[in-house]
Amino acid sequence: MLAGFLLLLLHTAVDGESTCSYQDVLNYLNLTKNNELYSMTRPVKDYTHPTQVSLEVLLYAILDVVKIDQTFVPYVWIFTKWQNEHIYWNPNDFCGIKTVSLPAEILWKPDIIIEEMTEKDKAPLSPHLTIDSNGLVHVQDDQVLVSTCRMHIFKFPFDIQSCKLSFKSVVHSVSEIQLVRHLNSSQATEWSREVMRTQYEWLFINLTVTNKTVSMFDFQQDVMIYTITMKRRSLLYIVNFILPILFFFLLDLASFLISDSGGEKLSFKVTVLLAVTVMQLILNDILPSSSDRIPLIALYCIGIFALMMLSLLETILVMYLMEKVSASEDNNSRGEKKLTHCACICDVSSDGTPTELQKGSISQLKEESHAEELREVLEMLAVLLNSRKEEAKPEYWTRIFSG
Amino acid sequence: MLAGFLLLLLHTAVDGESTCSYQDVLNYLNLTKNNELYSMTRPVKDYTHPTQVSLEVLLYAILDVVKIDQTFVPYVWIFTKWQNEHIYWNPNDFCGIKTVSLPAEILWKPDIIIEEMTEKDKAPLSPHLTIDSNGLVHVQDDQVLVSTCRMHIFKFPFDIQSCKLSFKSVVHSVSEIQLVRHLNSSQATEWSREVMRTQYEWLFINLTVTNKTVSMFDFQQDVMIYTITMKRRSLLYIVNFILPILFFFLLDLASFLISDSGGEKLSFKVTVLLAVTVMQLILNDILPSSSDRIPLIALYCIGIFALMMLSLLETILVMYLMEKVSASEDNNSRGEKKLTHCACICDVSSDGTPTELQKGSISQLKEESHAEELREVLEMLAVLLNSRKEEAKPEYWTRIFSG
Amino acid sequence: MLAGFLLLLLHTAVDGESTCSYQDVLNYLNLTKNNELYSMTRPVKDYTHPTQVSLEVLLYAILDVVKIDQTFVPYVWIFTKWQNEHIYWNPNDFCGIKTVSLPAEILWKPDIIIEEMTEKDKAPLSPHLTIDSNGLVHVQDDQVLVSTCRMHIFKFPFDIQSCKLSFKSVVHSVSEIQLVRHLNSSQATEWSREVMRTQYEWLFINLTVTNKTVSMFDFQQDVMIYTITMKRRSLLYIVNFILPILFFFLLDLASFLISDSGGEKLSFKVTVLLAVTVMQLILNDILPSSSDRIPLIALYCIGIFALMMLSLLETILVMYLMEKVSASEDNNSRGEKKLTHCACICDVSSDGTPTELQKGSISQLKEESHAEELREVLEMLAVLLNSRKEEAKPEYWTRIFSG
Amino acid sequence: MLAGFLLLLLHTAVDGESTCSYQDVLNYLNLTKNNELYSMTRPVKDYTHPTQVSLEVLLYAILDVVKIDQTFVPYVWIFTKWQNEHIYWNPNDFCGIKTVSLPAEILWKPDIIIEEMTEKDKAPLSPHLTIDSNGLVHVQDDQVLVSTCRMHIFKFPFDIQSCKLSFKSVVHSVSEIQLVRHLNSSQATEWSREVMRTQYEWLFINLTVTNKTVSMFDFQQDVMIYTITMKRRSLLYIVNFILPILFFFLLDLASFLISDSGGEKLSFKVTVLLAVTVMQLILNDILPSSSDRIPLIALYCIGIFALMMLSLLETILVMYLMEKVSASEDNNSRGEKKLTHCACICDVSSDGTPTELQKGSISQLKEESHAEELREVLEMLAVLLNSRKEEAKPEYWTRIFSG
Amino acid sequence: MLAGFLLLLLHTAVDGESTCSYQDVLNYLNLTKNNELYSMTRPVKDYTHPTQVSLEVLLYAILDVVKIDQTFVPYVWIFTKWQNEHIYWNPNDFCGIKTVSLPAEILWKPDIIIEEMTEKDKAPLSPHLTIDSNGLVHVQDDQVLVSTCRMHIFKFPFDIQSCKLSFKSVVHSVSEIQLVRHLNSSQATEWSREVMRTQYEWLFINLTVTNKTVSMFDFQQDVMIYTITMKRRSLLYIVNFILPILFFFLLDLASFLISDSGGEKLSFKVTVLLAVTVMQLILNDILPSSSDRIPLIALYCIGIFALMMLSLLETILVMYLMEKVSASEDNNSRGEKKLTHCACICDVSSDGTPTELQKGSISQLKEESHAEELREVLEMLAVLLNSRKEEAKPEYWTRIFSG
Repeated sequence: MLAGFLLLLLHTAVDGESTCSYQDVLNYLNLTKNNELYSMTRPVKDYTHPTQVSLEVLLYAILDVVKIDQTFVPYVWIFTKWQNEHIYWNPNDFCGIKTVSLPAEILWKPDIIIEEMTEKDKAPLSPHLTIDSNGLVHVQDDQVLVSTCRMHIFKFPFDIQSCKLSFKSVVHSVSEIQLVRHLNSSQATEWSREVMRTQYEWLFINLTVTNKTVSMFDFQQDVMIYTITMKRRSLLYIVNFILPILFFFLLDLASFLISDSGGEKLSFKVTVLLAVTVMQLILNDILPSSSDRIPLIALYCIGIFALMMLSLLETILVMYLMEKVSASEDNNSRGEKKLTHCACICDVSSDGTPTELQKGSISQLKEESHAEELREVLEMLAVLLNSRKEEAKPEYWTRIFSG
Repeated sequence: MLAGFLLLLLHTAVDGESTCSYQDVLNYLNLTKNNELYSMTRPVKDYTHPTQVSLEVLLYAILDVVKIDQTFVPYVWIFTKWQNEHIYWNPNDFCGIKTVSLPAEILWKPDIIIEEMTEKDKAPLSPHLTIDSNGLVHVQDDQVLVSTCRMHIFKFPFDIQSCKLSFKSVVHSVSEIQLVRHLNSSQATEWSREVMRTQYEWLFINLTVTNKTVSMFDFQQDVMIYTITMKRRSLLYIVNFILPILFFFLLDLASFLISDSGGEKLSFKVTVLLAVTVMQLILNDILPSSSDRIPLIALYCIGIFALMMLSLLETILVMYLMEKVSASEDNNSRGEKKLTHCACICDVSSDGTPTELQKGSISQLKEESHAEELREVLEMLAVLLNSRKEEAKPEYWTRIFSG
Repeated sequence: MLAGFLLLLLHTAVDGESTCSYQDVLNYLNLTKNNELYSMTRPVKDYTHPTQVSLEVLLYAILDVVKIDQTFVPYVWIFTKWQNEHIYWNPNDFCGIKTVSLPAEILWKPDIIIEEMTEKDKAPLSPHLTIDSNGLVHVQDDQVLVSTCRMHIFKFPFDIQSCKLSFKSVVHSVSEIQLVRHLNSSQATEWSREVMRTQYEWLFINLTVTNKTVSMFDFQQDVMIYTITMKRRSLLYIVNFILPILFFFLLDLASFLISDSGGEKLSFKVTVLLAVTVMQLILNDILPSSSDRIPLIALYCIGIFALMMLSLLETILVMYLMEKVSASEDNNSRGEKKLTHCACICDVSSDGTPTELQKGSISQLKEESHAEELREVLEMLAVLLNSRKEEAKPEYWTRIFSG
Repeated sequence: MLAGFLLLLLHTAVDGESTCSYQDVLNYLNLTKNNELYSMTRPVKDYTHPTQVSLEVLLYAILDVVKIDQTFVPYVWIFTKWQNEHIYWNPNDFCGIKTVSLPAEILWKPDIIIEEMTEKDKAPLSPHLTIDSNGLVHVQDDQVLVSTCRMHIFKFPFDIQSCKLSFKSVVHSVSEIQLVRHLNSSQATEWSREVMRTQYEWLFINLTVTNKTVSMFDFQQDVMIYTITMKRRSLLYIVNFILPILFFFLLDLASFLISDSGGEKLSFKVTVLLAVTVMQLILNDILPSSSDRIPLIALYCIGIFALMMLSLLETILVMYLMEKVSASEDNNSRGEKKLTHCACICDVSSDGTPTELQKGSISQLKEESHAEELREVLEMLAVLLNSRKEEAKPEYWTRIFSG
Repeated sequence: MLAGFLLLLLHTAVDGESTCSYQDVLNYLNLTKNNELYSMTRPVKDYTHPTQVSLEVLLYAILDVVKIDQTFVPYVWIFTKWQNEHIYWNPNDFCGIKTVSLPAEILWKPDIIIEEMTEKDKAPLSPHLTIDSNGLVHVQDDQVLVSTCRMHIFKFPFDIQSCKLSFKSVVHSVSEIQLVRHLNSSQATEWSREVMRTQYEWLFINLTVTNKTVSMFDFQQDVMIYTITMKRRSLLYIVNFILPILFFFLLDLASFLISDSGGEKLSFKVTVLLAVTVMQLILNDILPSSSDRIPLIALYCIGIFALMMLSLLETILVMYLMEKVSASEDNNSRGEKKLTHCACICDVSSDGTPTELQKGSISQLKEESHAEELREVLEMLAVLLNSRKEEAKPEYWTRIFSG
């Protein structure tokens, strides 16, 4: 190493005329890869000096917001700046060199982490940093942050989410590292809007910054919290999910116009119910399962499902009652039919009016004989009707009965 | 290196007034990246001293619990602390410096692993650690642990899971590394509740800690087991899966009111069955396949499926029998009809009562001729009926027959 | 190290006849792994010299274009070239050696990043680079770039996408690093076409290059933007999705030919609607959710869905009205039937023509009694008809009524 | 370095009383990070000594068995042990220190790989190893092995899989590295059962070990093959897939009881077929596609599908034939009906018996006129019937015909 | 380092009797981790010597072939061999040591890449390589290659794919690195067959090797192309997808036997169409979207879909026409019926034959009145019939009409 060092001196001496070279600055600072003064400890001359770390965050893109995992993946530009007290040179001594860019790993860096971050940065790290002649170190990192974010999906898909990014040091107290910033919330929002590329299915609303000092186990730390607020673009969910289900509900309502007598009403209603079940496969895909309240969209879905089912049950009951009534009519009228038939033939010689009279009296008899049965039925229906007020035409099928 | 070292001494001498610098402490300790005293072996002066490693774990978030792979992904904060006997300085000699933070890789660290962990930590590791003047080394790691956890899904989705995190050294025996802790179970639970962010679809219940010494191949080791207990939020599973299937079952029950005579009952019941089959696509997605007992939810699903099928089979049988009966009635009554028809005309001149009498006697004959056939049928139905008690109206369709 | 160095000299002296060895060049340049002159700072002798970085990009493959994440994954060949002013040798002194290939990590490299890149390069990096005798450094990298790209999916699947790759330095200003290129847009397109392997589901259209200087926070930087334009191959989407839905729509149109009287029309139409719902499961898979405008394909789908539903509602209404009319006909004609029946028998002694006359007059009466009811119905239908002009045979079912 | 070394000596001299320190052992062995004696070559004094590597594998968990990729992911504990001939110390000279634990990367390790392994280990590697005073090196690794495994899915889901893990050196021949073990197959099985945590959907059966020497390109190598045998827990597959399909088959069989005359039989059977098609979506998910034989479960599924289709075709044919017969009956009997009707009236004055006789003779005529048609039909049915023996009631519908 | 070196000499002198140690060879060669002679440049003494790299590739497993991404993942064994001219020793001087194995990173390695490779190798790299006494370096790597491969899916699932692996140096021209091989195509195929483990869903056919020299930008390079040809095992695709769709087509064909008069034909055909739609969900999963030609299987699917739809439209048309005809018949025959009915009664006193005659003449009249209507219908049908020849029984339903 001694020999290597001497050779190096020799070599730089050979092309010694290059006094404007960056290497001269590094030589002056003795800033080499192995100089532990620069990489081991916080770069202050007096340990009581806190290192002020300036931190600016711009939101470049919203890459992903995974409902299922409650994961938020923004792509941010982080500009960090701090004072390294071991670095100082007079630019005039070095042809006016004011800044030098260096490999990032040779200098101490503050251990700022984002509390919510759950995966190592996936984007390529910046390999270089820049130092100023007065000791300021500038680092720019473009980071893809996989962070956890508690989402409120009650109003899904009309929800607004706020995700936090809490920057803090891991091991340094507030007396060692202090976090400062120059852009305020509205400036950060404005700049972010300018550089923003893709926003996924979200509409970026704003970016707010707050500083605070938290203490845990009697250990005071500076925390800078960036809160990203965004609104979901719900258009496609409406078109793909909410509208079709609403359509099916309209169909189900419309089915009250279908005659109860044939079998097609039942078949129609149960097929519509099947289609809603298929839609539920989609709901199962898009909805996160991590909620303590049922999301409105699930209530909407299960509510429509339940209404359809109730109306289906009602249809079945009405059909059953109608059939029962007509069955007893049949029993009575079979004999009667023969009577009237015969009567009809019997009456060919007389006029038609007695037949009318006769039929009337017979049906009167029939209705009397089934009076107690019908009364039971109507009581059941009364109970059933009270339980559903939301459907528009309850009078429709009662009219069928009483009419 | 010699030259570099001399230069370094020179350089620090140049700004020699900085006696409050961290670097002075490191120089005093001779703590450099290459000093193998600090990084190679367990930092004790006498090898018989065990190193006591203090370990505190707080649960910051539950990121994922994958049923299919039996994987549990908590995000924990791990605070580790141990004594490095090579480190000691008098803070008074160094302007009162009591702690120094250093790059994490230059000191020996205990090889504590989590037995259940199946993937390398994905979260960014803390780059720094802190040393005290009396030799205590503090490390804080925020780790995303992908760990395996045996889940009991018998009661899914009303299950409570307990996942263990067993901390132990890989190669050190209990005489070398001992695990201690300061927070007890209730304190750890309380602190975790305080820092907890997202809980995925789970409700964190508690965190218990137990210490024990295990021996394997005559090798004694300290193990500290953190057990995280949590309860699944089952609300969405009820709304999305259990309720719809229950609704379909109600529909199927209600279908007993539909008349057996038309084709719509069959069509109705088989469509409801098809809808339950579509729901089974969802079950296949949400249910893990790794169970030795069938989960209750699968039993619920297949049970309802089976009941529906039985009732469908019954309907088919009843329809078959009714048709058979009516077919033989038809055969007999065709001739009879003509008889009565003719008779009716024949009797126009006489009174209507003999016709009634005649018809009665004929149907009596008909019933006698099919008596043995009906007896067989009723025996079959008796067997069938005994096999199903859970359905409410078994007397309904028997009445149809006997009525 | 001194000893090692002396030994090395000794060793190379032993086989000293090898004056044509690459090692001689490196020795002359003192280019070793630890020589920080080569790896620490921008390789210029005068810091005012900007480093011109020549950058050529060829598109080798389009690996993936994920609509959901708005991610574009091209596989590109990047040829980078710049001047290292510390490197120079006379080939004649070294047997004519003009180029030497070296491990890539021992020389300074410009910190060129691609702004849109969101993941570290997955392809293996080239381990070697080449230096020229006049100091030019050549690097060739085959990179799989996972980049974000704002997609316009309004015309999906007939869309053309343009994705940008913006090359720029992270920390160097335009006075330090300048980006130049030798291939123009058409040459880059031509070369790319030649080397292109797979294009995924896309048809590569062209590759355009633009240079510009941007300024941010008063910091001027050179940016070179490669724009890749490509067209989606929509054939399979037509065959798998658009055609089947169109077919179902045709079926639904054709169902106007089915008689309204039976139940099969309803059942037919609702099954076709169910099939379209199943197709929507596919749409949900292929469509990105990140759009501020509804894509045409979703409009197409929901539009056809809505038309089908309207026609279904109409069918139900028509059936209801028909039934109502026939029910009132029935009420009137029941009495009437007996009359005509009897009349028929009554008329056996007279001729058949009066019966015709009689029936006519009765139906006239019937139509008069329901005239006000029908008028209401026709007004409702008129409103309904105005709302749908796209269906070909609106006169069909009105004719049924009026006919 | 020289200076550093001297300082180090000085420092340890300062606290010279610590003769029981691990560092003393390392100093005695000159075991530093840069001593290439320990890390470069196989640690034997005479190159003809083979290094015996003792290898014990315990199965801690079965994490995943992916049918689609034929991937097997066990979590194993691997205990490796070998002799490093450069290491020896007398414990008595060092206060009785018998073992020292060291960072794993500073010693030579055998290049044992697992041939089937397709991904780098995902679990965190043990950072330490242990050396004995007599030179034995102990390494314990907890590895998650993503390995390829040829699966035999013919009997799925009742299959038993055997996956191999073949441990061998990459470049060392049998004269350099020999693999030995101390646990036999039954001991390894027993220990594995004891430590086993999760078994995914599998039931661990046993673990067998075999040693052999293979030669490739005249290069002899020791291979140790651990074979893990496990049985799939098929319960859930039965409940979720096999039972529902069987149920549908039963329904299809039962549908033979439904009358052929109405349309509901067809509708019923085709809906059941549709439900089986939905089940096939699940089969497509769970079945690997990499088989040269069709798995039994696919045969089961397609077989039931085919049987259902055949019975459906048969139903259609029978209905067609019945309709044809009745159509020709209708043609003939229309005239006939009028005859009998009239005849009935005609016969009012005479007795009823001749009508019976007359009707009999007419139907006789009718049957004669269709005799040749029926014969053709019955021949077709005979062919059809021979092709299906598995269904229970072939006589049912033939009786309908002949009856 | 000097001190360390002297100590090392001392230490090896202490056990100086070990003259058969590998370390002696390394000391003779001065082969240390820091000797840049071995790791920096191409190991030739005269730069004009090209380095011949011998490359043998065996296919160990086909792990994955992803249609969607056009990704091919083989697991290959790559045996590489080249001459390092700096390495030479006389085995006789070192107890007969002929080969030494070393950590892989300390020697120069050719920068051979595989052009198609899109991800870094996932399998663990071999940590060691072997050197011969005459300077040959042997490296064996087991690599999982994630490579891109242009697939031809036109004939899917009966396709044969050929995927290339093009080995070439990144920066070295043909005058620096030459690629040679010893196994020819048939030998490589044979050896691969022998070591092959899993083949995924493919059947390995053969492995061909070709050498060529390509030039790009006037830069000549050696390329060695291994082409792996394999055939898809299509059995499961036939069983799971092609057969079921064919079955549905047969059902649809068979539905021509169902009577047009009832509603069940329509319901049957549309349910079969729905089942085919569900099958299309599977097609959407298994088919890649990256094709310029529509794959045969998609044509098959959409073709059958279209045929079914046409036959469904036809059925609807036929039903419409039949209904229209019968409706006009009804209008005419209503009056007529009464006539015949009355006539029948009228004729009771006369004989039955005139009724026959009368009915005949009436139906004759009826057919005449509808003659022009039927002619139009038949012309439409003729057009329709010409458009479909593939269905077997077009005469069936025309006969219904004309009959």
